[in-house]
Amino acid sequence: MWCVCVVLLRCPHPNVDSVTQNSTPSRTIDGFVPVVPAGGVGSRLWPLSRPDRPKFLIDLLGTGSTLIQDTVARLAPLSAEVIIVTGERHASAVAAQLPDLDERAIVAEPSPRDSMAAIALAAALIEQRHGEQIMGSFAADHVIPDADAFREAVATAVGAARTGKVVTIGIEPTGPSSAFGYIRSGAALADAPGAFEVEAFTEKPDHEAAAAMLASGGHVWNAGMFVVSTSVLLGHLARLQPSLEAGVRRIAAAWDGPGRADALAEIWPTLTKIAIDHAIAEPVAAEGGVAVVPGSFAWDDVGDFDALASMLSADADGVIRIGRDAPVSVVDAPGAVVVGGTKPLAVVGIADAVVVETDEALLVLGRHAAQRVKDVRL
Amino acid sequence: MWCVCVVLLRCPHPNVDSVTQNSTPSRTIDGFVPVVPAGGVGSRLWPLSRPDRPKFLIDLLGTGSTLIQDTVARLAPLSAEVIIVTGERHASAVAAQLPDLDERAIVAEPSPRDSMAAIALAAALIEQRHGEQIMGSFAADHVIPDADAFREAVATAVGAARTGKVVTIGIEPTGPSSAFGYIRSGAALADAPGAFEVEAFTEKPDHEAAAAMLASGGHVWNAGMFVVSTSVLLGHLARLQPSLEAGVRRIAAAWDGPGRADALAEIWPTLTKIAIDHAIAEPVAAEGGVAVVPGSFAWDDVGDFDALASMLSADADGVIRIGRDAPVSVVDAPGAVVVGGTKPLAVVGIADAVVVETDEALLVLGRHAAQRVKDVRL
Repeated sequence: MWCVCVVLLRCPHPNVDSVTQNSTPSRTIDGFVPVVPAGGVGSRLWPLSRPDRPKFLIDLLGTGSTLIQDTVARLAPLSAEVIIVTGERHASAVAAQLPDLDERAIVAEPSPRDSMAAIALAAALIEQRHGEQIMGSFAADHVIPDADAFREAVATAVGAARTGKVVTIGIEPTGPSSAFGYIRSGAALADAPGAFEVEAFTEKPDHEAAAAMLASGGHVWNAGMFVVSTSVLLGHLARLQPSLEAGVRRIAAAWDGPGRADALAEIWPTLTKIAIDHAIAEPVAAEGGVAVVPGSFAWDDVGDFDALASMLSADADGVIRIGRDAPVSVVDAPGAVVVGGTKPLAVVGIADAVVVETDEALLVLGRHAAQRVKDVRL
Repeated sequence: MWCVCVVLLRCPHPNVDSVTQNSTPSRTIDGFVPVVPAGGVGSRLWPLSRPDRPKFLIDLLGTGSTLIQDTVARLAPLSAEVIIVTGERHASAVAAQLPDLDERAIVAEPSPRDSMAAIALAAALIEQRHGEQIMGSFAADHVIPDADAFREAVATAVGAARTGKVVTIGIEPTGPSSAFGYIRSGAALADAPGAFEVEAFTEKPDHEAAAAMLASGGHVWNAGMFVVSTSVLLGHLARLQPSLEAGVRRIAAAWDGPGRADALAEIWPTLTKIAIDHAIAEPVAAEGGVAVVPGSFAWDDVGDFDALASMLSADADGVIRIGRDAPVSVVDAPGAVVVGGTKPLAVVGIADAVVVETDEALLVLGRHAAQRVKDVRL
């Protein structure tokens, strides 16, 4: 069962240009439209994240802005337009968090059909509205502290995408992480400065394999960032997943008119559920059609509390505080991480304890077990 | 600086006989008056205990009654009277928790002057009111699940006290605990069935010394329970701490008349601060004047959360719950202990974690470090 998509937007402002908070000025890239898939609960960040309050809607770093607000602000200087693709149940929350967005900027999916359908629908919509453009897809819930360096990499990737490549931005590893997939790069592309051939995508390795890739050089982390011409993307899709391509084109054609609900109701549930990695990135890389732009900026998908704590510094008492002002006392508790909460808290005799308090629930976690939070059943 | 004692009691009932909740019927002992020193914060049980909410005022086991209520209920079948000696700041809370107590039952100290002054004042007051009686001193904040077995031991101790001995009830050890002092017993007393000579008191030993004492036999835990004739106690005190004896006699003489406040103001601050162990038990034992009645009932002073958890059983999910009904989820967290709190709680990846939530504060503790809770500064 699924519902017809009804998007209620509260936003009275038809101009995205004003969404530039937290961003330094940067040049707009002509013909470039950023796309922000906003999906995924982030279940290893419970109780901060919950199905009705997914990770991208949270002020995860305690900075005063949510991850999707940071993501949109980071992209805003590059383009007057942005497309957010999110679930119908979160569309109004997204609109409320981004009040300066144009109503047409939020694309609400009636049900999750994986990343290829979301990104392809955005591509088809952009092409429907503007003709061929270079699109860039950037997840709503990643953390990139250096927005300028990020935008430089995007500009380089857009240049490479204009040569007809599917371009990914890979992150130069800071260590042999087993939390991310890897991209093996090859020769520099003659007609696209700063871009390299992609030889292969690799699934998340174990620590040993990750260390071997780092030692061999030429490997970057797969951050799931894709920059590509809408026509190139939809062209690959027409070859590799033709019914998916035809479906999103039909939905896009109806989107800005009276037929959107009917088209969604008829077509959306029939679309193949597949990730863009499997649908496009891997097969096209095998054909030599994917390039990578290495980015040397800090990046993390902040998948769990261990990753979150790694991005932050401890206070003088050795405690990492996130969104917490209330008093904390630690006794023989090195490496404590405290998140939220308003009552005085003491941590005694436990190393690397993570204590997370929200209005609804309390989590006490050994930081090494951060991945196990997804197994909590309450 | 200290204040004149003003005790405001809310209790309209002049009869202690009705304080028999949670107790099975047991025979009254003629001429016996129990005394309950109610002092000590229990700082290792923070945040359940606090200076304004000491351990004896808490429902520590989550049974619906506080430790002082349990203590008084345990003693009530033995005597129509009980004397509670507590700090002035807690007198009204004690009275509120024990509404059936006679107004004269609560003796409020203007300031803490250690256990000898508290117990000696009670002895002098009892003798002032009734002439010589056998008194028994039992801390307000210990846990004794089997009240009948306890009362049997008290009855035996009262018999021994009638021979003129200072009698202590020692607990037969269940293991080589280093948390308690020990009593070495000698020959059985011919004229006091069930009682033995005390050869020596021993301070809290280390684990090895405790194991050696258990192996040698004849050692019991010092539970701080003293049963003695008021005249015998005050007679020893007159020899060993004469100014203390004279002081409490003068206060007691004024207590039930208009001169109480003046007597307390003048004399109380001058009384020697000393524990009954050092003032009476140890020197009189050296003279051969102390006997011990071994008690085989379960007993604990429940000094910290480790001791508290040891008294309770885990639920089917392996979690020990105390005063908590809200949901708990444990993931790779064996031996979790959860105390209080109303929000759903998850414990992930930490063994033997203790999580204590009150309205005012939150404690996350490794159970092995239970003694360190006293070092929390908030």
